[in-house]
Amino acid sequence: MAHPITPLSPPLKGELDIVIHTIKNLDFLEMWRPFLQPYHLIIIQDGDPYKVIKVPNGFDYKLYNRNNVDRVLGPKARCISLMGFAYSCFDFLVSKKCIFTIDDDCFNLLTPSTPLFFNTLYDPYRDGADFIHGYPFSLREGVSTAISHGLWLNIPDYDAPTQLVKPRERSTRYVDAVMTIPKGTLFPMSGMNLAFDRELIGPAMYFGLMDYGQPFGRYDYMWAGWCAKVICDHLNLEVKTGLPYIWRSKASNPFVNLKKEYDGIYLQEEIIPFFQSIVLPKKCTTVQECYVELSKLVKVNLGYVDHYFQQLGDAMLTRIEAWEELNPPKEASSAAEPKSLKKEEPSPKSK
Amino acid sequence: MAHPITPLSPPLKGELDIVIHTIKNLDFLEMWRPFLQPYHLIIIQDGDPYKVIKVPNGFDYKLYNRNNVDRVLGPKARCISLMGFAYSCFDFLVSKKCIFTIDDDCFNLLTPSTPLFFNTLYDPYRDGADFIHGYPFSLREGVSTAISHGLWLNIPDYDAPTQLVKPRERSTRYVDAVMTIPKGTLFPMSGMNLAFDRELIGPAMYFGLMDYGQPFGRYDYMWAGWCAKVICDHLNLEVKTGLPYIWRSKASNPFVNLKKEYDGIYLQEEIIPFFQSIVLPKKCTTVQECYVELSKLVKVNLGYVDHYFQQLGDAMLTRIEAWEELNPPKEASSAAEPKSLKKEEPSPKSK
Repeated sequence: MAHPITPLSPPLKGELDIVIHTIKNLDFLEMWRPFLQPYHLIIIQDGDPYKVIKVPNGFDYKLYNRNNVDRVLGPKARCISLMGFAYSCFDFLVSKKCIFTIDDDCFNLLTPSTPLFFNTLYDPYRDGADFIHGYPFSLREGVSTAISHGLWLNIPDYDAPTQLVKPRERSTRYVDAVMTIPKGTLFPMSGMNLAFDRELIGPAMYFGLMDYGQPFGRYDYMWAGWCAKVICDHLNLEVKTGLPYIWRSKASNPFVNLKKEYDGIYLQEEIIPFFQSIVLPKKCTTVQECYVELSKLVKVNLGYVDHYFQQLGDAMLTRIEAWEELNPPKEASSAAEPKSLKKEEPSPKSK
Repeated sequence: MAHPITPLSPPLKGELDIVIHTIKNLDFLEMWRPFLQPYHLIIIQDGDPYKVIKVPNGFDYKLYNRNNVDRVLGPKARCISLMGFAYSCFDFLVSKKCIFTIDDDCFNLLTPSTPLFFNTLYDPYRDGADFIHGYPFSLREGVSTAISHGLWLNIPDYDAPTQLVKPRERSTRYVDAVMTIPKGTLFPMSGMNLAFDRELIGPAMYFGLMDYGQPFGRYDYMWAGWCAKVICDHLNLEVKTGLPYIWRSKASNPFVNLKKEYDGIYLQEEIIPFFQSIVLPKKCTTVQECYVELSKLVKVNLGYVDHYFQQLGDAMLTRIEAWEELNPPKEASSAAEPKSLKKEEPSPKSK
């Protein structure tokens, strides 16, 4: 860890929300107190909304459960999965800041990404590193980093078949690197140890309809990652992967995972070529516009594979509507002014 | 180092040639004796061909100087630069095996690459690693690795402006990773600590016309890297970068480098978009065919930027002619058979 246990001024205080998705009491927060106490926590309670979740004293938090989701979203709550990880993307709707699912570090979001050319020395913006000889100077400003994808030590993030085949494998290699995922390249995003800039990419961080009542699960964060990556590529934003690491101590059950995954493993072979072929129209210049376009493409191009994708496309659209409702544009009042005033002649208010 | 100092059976013996480019006696080979003595060395003498280069006893080597180059290539020797690193690509013409410019490890070439999707756990074929959850199963066979690009510790591989701005910076971060450079992404290739499979990509490993008598230098290996990468992308081959590291002890002179580079720094801004836009025709199915096509594209698309690229395009073509002359196709005799026998009806020889 690069920071002292009790930093004098906690980094990004007021800019960072911490999201915790749980089904049980949050005693583990005691271990994270030195790091997390300065921040606002958004706690998403999975499962029975009437169960009381205990949060250690002294934390600034807001707890949401299914009842809150229904109250906040009304009929639009149908776009939020009932259980499982996908359910936690509700928090992304209600937060106001940078989002970080768990870990004490989201500095990757504060330096640019370099998606247009590969830097063999890894992140050129880290101390002691730079662009290697042969890196075009015109590309050295980079682009804004929208997502920071951290990795895990100990229990590897394997699919169920690999878990079953390699039950004793542990990730012990600490790779001291951060790198940009190049433009045009998809990656499998994990929802644990993930930070993103909500202003830049929030509307695309939707975990889809997954798990309970749906044909498959365990592809929730993947779905968000594929959508976010093609939108980042289109809008000249980018994704970094690598540090920071978290230590994962307990593996999930491979038999349960296989049951959730097996249909996804098959469908993924249709989903990936679809995402690899996407070219978003130039007229889409915001994440919302891109996402609406994407929801249509999902219905047209994947709907024939399984009817589920028709529902998913609809849910994507509903999610964007919910986003816009809960996050009205900052200039909503001036948007109500007559267009002629705003565009053709400057209004008296503008300078 | 992963291997014992005196391995019982030297890895890849008979499959690996070691290329050393030098202007002085090779006393340093004593330090490498345990690793290099089992292999055939190709020593390229730069500068005055009449100077005697001393090689320590006990090594199996062949030494080439400018006189040999002229004798072997005749008028085609014009495609080989007179001095500098670019000159060393002559050795790639005369070797028969895997090529490794320096280091004791070219195992990256023995496992596949994964250019079509990003594996956040780095090289999935290393011990203790695998494909991460969400990596499509249909892509897990990977593609053949044509090039292994190793990195440097201590002196970083910086361009002259960065050298001048950061004279004291040292690379101290050992990043324990190997990764595939994704399809469609260019990288700056270094010629030191480079291994490649000559059968797969040899004809594209041409360092161009550089340094002495040419408008600029220090982009020789970059040129080879850009050409090789677009050809790898087209032929479903790929490049790995990362381990193994070498320790570079002495920096080159930034003032001399700047003099060689400054025109390249400018021209590169035209060269990179050109390489990024290349789509090779489907009919090109061998490295040679791709490279001939590339030489034409260079003349058409870069010739207008500087007349130098006309000469370079011609030299690329000459290099391929030299390659074919020195490396006749293995089935040269059967190629002489009538086409009808070979394609329409099986010849009596084939089973």
